[in-house]
Amino acid sequence: MPIVQIDLIEGRSLEQKREMVKKVTEAIVETAKCPPEAVTIVVREASPQHIGKAGKLVSDK
Amino acid sequence: MPIVQIDLIEGRSLEQKREMVKKVTEAIVETAKCPPEAVTIVVREASPQHIGKAGKLVSDK
Amino acid sequence: MPIVQIDLIEGRSLEQKREMVKKVTEAIVETAKCPPEAVTIVVREASPQHIGKAGKLVSDK
Amino acid sequence: MPIVQIDLIEGRSLEQKREMVKKVTEAIVETAKCPPEAVTIVVREASPQHIGKAGKLVSDK
Amino acid sequence: MPIVQIDLIEGRSLEQKREMVKKVTEAIVETAKCPPEAVTIVVREASPQHIGKAGKLVSDK
Amino acid sequence: MPIVQIDLIEGRSLEQKREMVKKVTEAIVETAKCPPEAVTIVVREASPQHIGKAGKLVSDK
Repeated sequence: MPIVQIDLIEGRSLEQKREMVKKVTEAIVETAKCPPEAVTIVVREASPQHIGKAGKLVSDK
Repeated sequence: MPIVQIDLIEGRSLEQKREMVKKVTEAIVETAKCPPEAVTIVVREASPQHIGKAGKLVSDK
Repeated sequence: MPIVQIDLIEGRSLEQKREMVKKVTEAIVETAKCPPEAVTIVVREASPQHIGKAGKLVSDK
Repeated sequence: MPIVQIDLIEGRSLEQKREMVKKVTEAIVETAKCPPEAVTIVVREASPQHIGKAGKLVSDK
Repeated sequence: MPIVQIDLIEGRSLEQKREMVKKVTEAIVETAKCPPEAVTIVVREASPQHIGKAGKLVSDK
Repeated sequence: MPIVQIDLIEGRSLEQKREMVKKVTEAIVETAKCPPEAVTIVVREASPQHIGKAGKLVSDK
């Protein structure tokens, strides 16, 4: 702990995910006052056909 | 907010997911008294090899 | 399955949650073509001090 | 209910997942005192490019 | 990793949760072939007013 | 989207959660290249009696 789950729309590069994991971990460590080793992050990328916003699939917008 | 996460077994058509997102959003808007723009839905489809029920994989039933 | 997890800000009445569970289940049954008995819903109410939007706690807005 | 969500790194065999579902269900039934039919398990396998530990992607370690 | 999230209806004793964490961890270690230190479990207890089954709140059954 | 769910052990101050939401949002905006308005964060604080690590409740350590 802490455990961070991030759901986002697919399409980010590996480099973006690498930076995301680095910077989100730093943000957690700094504010929760825990060691970096304690932070686990799971990134889940979803297709626009699996996300709804305001009642519509994102792929239909 | 509200955020709705739906886990279900794979195999629904795009049209079914489109209708699911539309109708679930309507149900949330009507009962939580929030605007449709506030509702985000994430649909996750899982293979029957990743779901267990009563101690058995769904793919084994 | 399906499993539906709903995260929303606290403050809805029991009657609202009762209606939410009823109507969301109907929406899932109708679009996923499954029996109502297969639908499980977990509603999680969070305090405005536990939700962030656009970088701010909802309780600070 | 109970609902069990397991996130782990990809690479387990079907036989491992079959045993996991069987044994985790037994553990829940025994300790929560519920019938096996009440236990639903969702296993989500993530690529090492989607998991961060201590600020680094697992795929970079 | 692995991360295990367990949602269940409130009312289990501390001793039951202690045993649940012990036995579920053993089941994961044995089948995922990972060290016990790698397993994190989050137990979330929900009131029957926050769980829906077949379109009804569990508290109404 | 993105949606960020953070599970951590209870005991952080309101000010810590305020900073966490601010800094995690900045980290997501910078790396996912999305506007801050798109980022929703849910923080869930759990008691040490609800978290297991290496087969033991955190409250027992």
